[in-house]
This record gives sequence, structure tokens and C-alpha cells, in this order.
Amino acid sequence: MPRREELLKYLPLIEEELTAALDMCQASEPLLSAMRYSLLAGGKRLRPSLALGVCDMLGGKTEIALRLGCAIELIHTYSLIHDDLPCMDDDDMRRGRPSNHKVYGEAQALLAGDALLTYAFERMLSAAQIANEAYYRGVLEIAKRAFGMVAGQSMDLIAENDPEAGEEELNYIHRHKTADLLTASVLAGAYSASADEDTIKRLEAFSEKMGLLFQITDDILDREGDPALMGKTLGKDEKENKLTFVSLYGLEKAKTLAEGLQKECHAMLDGAFAKRAGYLHLVIDYIVERNN
Amino acid sequence: MPRREELLKYLPLIEEELTAALDMCQASEPLLSAMRYSLLAGGKRLRPSLALGVCDMLGGKTEIALRLGCAIELIHTYSLIHDDLPCMDDDDMRRGRPSNHKVYGEAQALLAGDALLTYAFERMLSAAQIANEAYYRGVLEIAKRAFGMVAGQSMDLIAENDPEAGEEELNYIHRHKTADLLTASVLAGAYSASADEDTIKRLEAFSEKMGLLFQITDDILDREGDPALMGKTLGKDEKENKLTFVSLYGLEKAKTLAEGLQKECHAMLDGAFAKRAGYLHLVIDYIVERNN
Repeated sequence: MPRREELLKYLPLIEEELTAALDMCQASEPLLSAMRYSLLAGGKRLRPSLALGVCDMLGGKTEIALRLGCAIELIHTYSLIHDDLPCMDDDDMRRGRPSNHKVYGEAQALLAGDALLTYAFERMLSAAQIANEAYYRGVLEIAKRAFGMVAGQSMDLIAENDPEAGEEELNYIHRHKTADLLTASVLAGAYSASADEDTIKRLEAFSEKMGLLFQITDDILDREGDPALMGKTLGKDEKENKLTFVSLYGLEKAKTLAEGLQKECHAMLDGAFAKRAGYLHLVIDYIVERNN
Repeated sequence: MPRREELLKYLPLIEEELTAALDMCQASEPLLSAMRYSLLAGGKRLRPSLALGVCDMLGGKTEIALRLGCAIELIHTYSLIHDDLPCMDDDDMRRGRPSNHKVYGEAQALLAGDALLTYAFERMLSAAQIANEAYYRGVLEIAKRAFGMVAGQSMDLIAENDPEAGEEELNYIHRHKTADLLTASVLAGAYSASADEDTIKRLEAFSEKMGLLFQITDDILDREGDPALMGKTLGKDEKENKLTFVSLYGLEKAKTLAEGLQKECHAMLDGAFAKRAGYLHLVIDYIVERNN
């Protein structure tokens, strides 16, 4: 299978589950439409794909990885809607379309985010027929990491306006804002297979590195996508005053960091899972190569 | 015990649990302070008190009712923070103090709401040692009703600007926006006692009526608290253009409705629980008499 097809192989299953979840959702209008607008806006579905990829690698139960992974996608979607709001990043566009609040207004967009977050838990808790002890540990892991994501976003906003913010804050932001939901996705796959503690620990260490790689790559792509900023390599990003890997370390050092992390991720997978980790290797390379 | 003392008898237990929950919360600053500001802002703690009152009535496990009831209080608090935001009701004050976003800014207030909602689920799912099948049914019930609350708020905003909105919309709004979390609280108490289906059904019917009574009384208090509006009895409330029981039916009919509901609530309790329902009778009378 070509690499891109292989990477996206879980998409039909995921889209079917997300559509089914919305079809079962008892919401009034325009709330349901606002939820649907952002949830079914395409995308690579990296988070549920990670859950399913790890599930397959460990011989887990697909229905558990799918249920948990898609709940994470709901949580990811709510975070994007809230992030785009005027009081946050104030973004008018998302994935090439007007952002949620540009279509439904700020109040309904705020509520659509609240609704997606709540519905994620409703979906996870409505699965008594597949739930075992590991399943509920997975749901708890997702709750903890969804909380971490909010804490990371909060710190990110604070760091923007704090000239003292540096490496420590940057690490906190990216460990939580970005890595937490990716880690939750990988661990959802592990819990679908009732994985042992050792496997959980290895996957956790791997995903935290993967999350860092994801964020550094994002920062590099953001900077390279903006020719006006190409000359800048130190100080905070003057476009948005954001604290990023590029603003803190410069573009070259950020690239070196990313290359190192990419190698480390591959090596961790080889060490822990040998030939079984094909899908995760693919994800690591996708993270580096996307948008290029 | 005097009635007021009896009504508030669970407060020390509840405040202790809420404080402990925040003490265990791994959040960065100012997020944690923003969560604390609104969560520990006093109040009657009606929702967890209901859970504990029903738990005692049915001989349930206090630790379950307390855990679930306090999670509902976190959810209630998040909904108040989001409700007060400029894009929603734009309220500068809450419980006699500046609202969350007036103190922490809109972005951190939005995130504090997201964090409280997420943390409510983290707390409920971190209780494996007390969790049984009924417990998880309780968590699911809370998720469903927390979702219903958002749907009710969405409809409420839509009805404000819709001259066609009438009885049907008003019933939807109040069944969800207000009654859902009160019902979740009562049922949390029922699940703490692993109550049978018949008891659950009776308590559900009772709480939905209690929720309606709560909302009508709110609408009456809102109108009577504003002398400028005393002359108005028909058409939408001109102050906020809100669809309320008073704006739809007029003050006198709303009062008659409330009196009827109060009697019905007492009669339902007598029929279902005879002498055991003392605490719930007290809550019903409090709902009608508060602020008077």
C-alpha cells in the first residue's frame, strides 16, 4: 500500500463513527449544525488513527480504540472552536473555511465547543457493553489529558504577554497543549488491548516525544510559511508575540531539534516494538513531512 | 433543627470536598485561581445537597453522592462562567462579585470554564475504588444532562431573537437549561443507593417538575426585582428580550403555575416516599421562598 494510503487507512471507519455519533446526538438547532460543521470538516484524523494504529499493533479491540479515539477527535474539535474565538486567537479561517463563530456567531460557537466536549464523555460512557477496567482507565486518561490541554493553552496565552517566559514555559505549553491529546490517543490504543504497565510506560514516553516533534514542526512550518518573518531568528515571533521553538531557539536550531527527535522516535519504536510499529513509523514521518 | 440549618446541613461536607478537589488539581496559574474564584464563591450548593439528601433518603453511599454531586457543582460553575461572558449574557457581576472574566479576562475565563467541565469528569472517573455499575450509570446520566443543559442554553439564545418562539421553545429551554442538572443531582443520589428502575422513574418525574418550579420562580423573582418592568405582563421581557414564563403568560398566571407545581411536588414526594422525603420537601419550599 502506498504510504499515504496506509496512513489514511482508518479514515472510512473513523468518519463512519463520527457521523453515527452525530446522528445519535439529541441537540437542538443550530447547535447540532454548529457541532457538525466543525467535526465533519475533514482533516487527517490523526488522533483516532493513532488509537487504531496502536490497537492493531497490540492486537486490541477495534471497537474500544474507535470509541475512545473518536471521543478524542470530538475533544480536539472543541478545542479548535474555542481557540478560534475572538477572545482567544481570533482566527476567521480554519481548514480553508470560515471558522465556527464566523458562521454561527460567537455564542453558538462557544456552546458548540462545550457541547462537543460534553458529548465526548457521553459517548465514552455510553459503551457499557464494551467497557472493562482498562476501558475506564482509558477514559480517565483522556479526561486528564484533556484537562492538561486546557492548562497548556492557558499558559500559552500568559507566555505571550510575559517577556520573562522562556524554556520552562515553552516546555510546559507544548507538553500539555499539543502532546497531551496525542498521548491520550496512543494510550487509548494501548487500553483497547489492556496493555501491561511496561507497554503503557514505553508508549507514553514515545508519545511525549512525538508531541514535541509535532509542535516543533508546527512552529517551523508557521515561520517558513510567512516570508516576512524569515529574517527573524531570535526573540518572540513578532507576528503574534507567541513563544515558540523558533522564536526561542531560531529556525536552524529548531530544525536540528526536530531531526533529532524524529530519529529518537523511530529508535524508540524499533527498541520497543521491532517490526510491529510500521504504522507509528509512518505517522512520525508524516508529522515531519506534512505541508511540505 | 431549624429549617434553614437543615437545608444547609450538607454544606461543610460539600465545601470540604470541593476544596480537596481543587487542592488535587494539577493546573497552572492563573487557570487554577480562576477555577477557584468561581467554584469557591459560596452559594447554597443546591445540586450536591440534593444528591446527598436523596442518598440519605434511600440509604445510599455518601461518598458516591458526594463525588457525583460535587462534580455537578463543577459543571454548574463552568456554565455560569460561560454564561456571563460578553458573547453570552454579558454579565459583569455574579453572586455580588465581579464575574470571572472581569477578574481574569475573557480568554482565561473561557478556559476556566472548559477546565471545570473537564475536571468534573476527571474527578468522577478517578473513583475506581467506589465505582460500581450504578456509579457509572450515574456518570453517564450527568454527562447526558450536562449536554442537555448546553442544548437548552443554545435554544434560549435563539428564542431571544425569534418573535415566533413560544410555549414549545420555552418548555424545551427550561426542561434542559435548568431542570437537567437538578435532575442529574437527584438521580446521582439515587445511583449512590443503586436504586431500582421504579424509584429512578419517580425521582426523575419529581425532579423535572422541581426544575420547572425553579425556573418559574426565577422568572417571577427577576420580574419582581425590576420595578421598571412591573407594569408589563405580556410580550417578551423588554429588558433582555428573553422568553420567560412571565413574558409569555404574565406575572399572575406564572404565580398560579408555581403554586400548582409546588403542591404537585409535595404530593409526588408524599406518594412515593411518605415520611422519608423530609429533606426534599424542604428544598421545594426553599425554591419558592428564596430571595423573599
